[in-house]
Amino acid sequence: MARFIDLTHALADAQPGYPGDPEFHIRRFHTLASAGFNVAEITASTHQGTHLDAPYHFFDDGATVDSIPLDRFCGEASLVDLAPHGALAPRTGIGIATLEKHADAFVPGARILLRTGWDRRWHHADFFTDHPSLTLDAAHWIASRRIALLGLDTPSPSVEDLEVHRILLDPAAQIVIVESLANLEQLPPRFTFIGFPLRLDGCDGSPIRAVALCGEAR
Amino acid sequence: MARFIDLTHALADAQPGYPGDPEFHIRRFHTLASAGFNVAEITASTHQGTHLDAPYHFFDDGATVDSIPLDRFCGEASLVDLAPHGALAPRTGIGIATLEKHADAFVPGARILLRTGWDRRWHHADFFTDHPSLTLDAAHWIASRRIALLGLDTPSPSVEDLEVHRILLDPAAQIVIVESLANLEQLPPRFTFIGFPLRLDGCDGSPIRAVALCGEAR
Repeated sequence: MARFIDLTHALADAQPGYPGDPEFHIRRFHTLASAGFNVAEITASTHQGTHLDAPYHFFDDGATVDSIPLDRFCGEASLVDLAPHGALAPRTGIGIATLEKHADAFVPGARILLRTGWDRRWHHADFFTDHPSLTLDAAHWIASRRIALLGLDTPSPSVEDLEVHRILLDPAAQIVIVESLANLEQLPPRFTFIGFPLRLDGCDGSPIRAVALCGEAR
Repeated sequence: MARFIDLTHALADAQPGYPGDPEFHIRRFHTLASAGFNVAEITASTHQGTHLDAPYHFFDDGATVDSIPLDRFCGEASLVDLAPHGALAPRTGIGIATLEKHADAFVPGARILLRTGWDRRWHHADFFTDHPSLTLDAAHWIASRRIALLGLDTPSPSVEDLEVHRILLDPAAQIVIVESLANLEQLPPRFTFIGFPLRLDGCDGSPIRAVALCGEAR
């Protein structure tokens, strides 16, 4: 029997976002009393909450969320758990030696969700500032593996180094990054990942509903 | 070989929405020059473009998009094509007699996408005002079948009668409505529908990326 696991943080009015990015708001716009039905207005960064980065996030000539083939966002995926039953310490560096223990998963076209346990810090003051980070070497190592999608439970692949983003999103690497995933501890080693972006015209990213489908015959 | 069909209209800055609803905008917020990366700010109605209605859209005690089980939004689905190779005329009434020809599809728990061909009028002046509509009797007939999800290529199940919305979204019927779908003419009779809402706290609806997965062994 297939079951769904929600890998998405809830989007609540005025919740924190990446420092300096647009604020997130949900405003009641129509109500049953005013219009006969409820309608809300959403204001969001393209990188609010659980979301996806397209190469255009760091490259003006990179692919935008609406120009990436749909099969990139949905299909067989693997969990790489770097902290089984726990969480990496703040600002842990994730290097090649750590990733090489899971080298079997990093094959061309793979969708890999990397678990650090950092989603427990969601809504804490340090969520955006002190999360574990890929080293530059690790980013190059991942890019060279030509995987299709890298999912993280951190809000970014690196706290301080924008170059890590650039290496992964480089149009030559063509990797889609999913950030601020939740509940990865509930995943089996293999599952179907579903996380389509909204069809936002020419955009660098999109909030997504990230979901795992487990136990289905594939 | 499985293939994906995009059932979603593109979301472009300042595109039309349902009359009186919040406007849709995509604004550049950060750029490579200003911040080292591109980030955009999105402003949208919960009912912009291809989107989903939860019962809370018409019932203050109805389920919100973040409280509906995930399996409602993804799984086996059927196309009911009311205008093969063409489109219904503006303001066509869709009655019980029409639906009864497809009664086999309307079983409890079914996900049904109803094709009228109206998606061709997207961005035309009459898209929101003159589309084909379910009759009140047809809405009651559908609700009584206890289907799980009703998808439409029109922006609403009825041009003039809010009661049609109420009948379908009534917490007793528990039907999720997907509106303004595109490209339904590309669908086979049976497929996997995927259309998860964003995890919007307490919201009445959500823009979605609606996708069909065809040809996969199920």
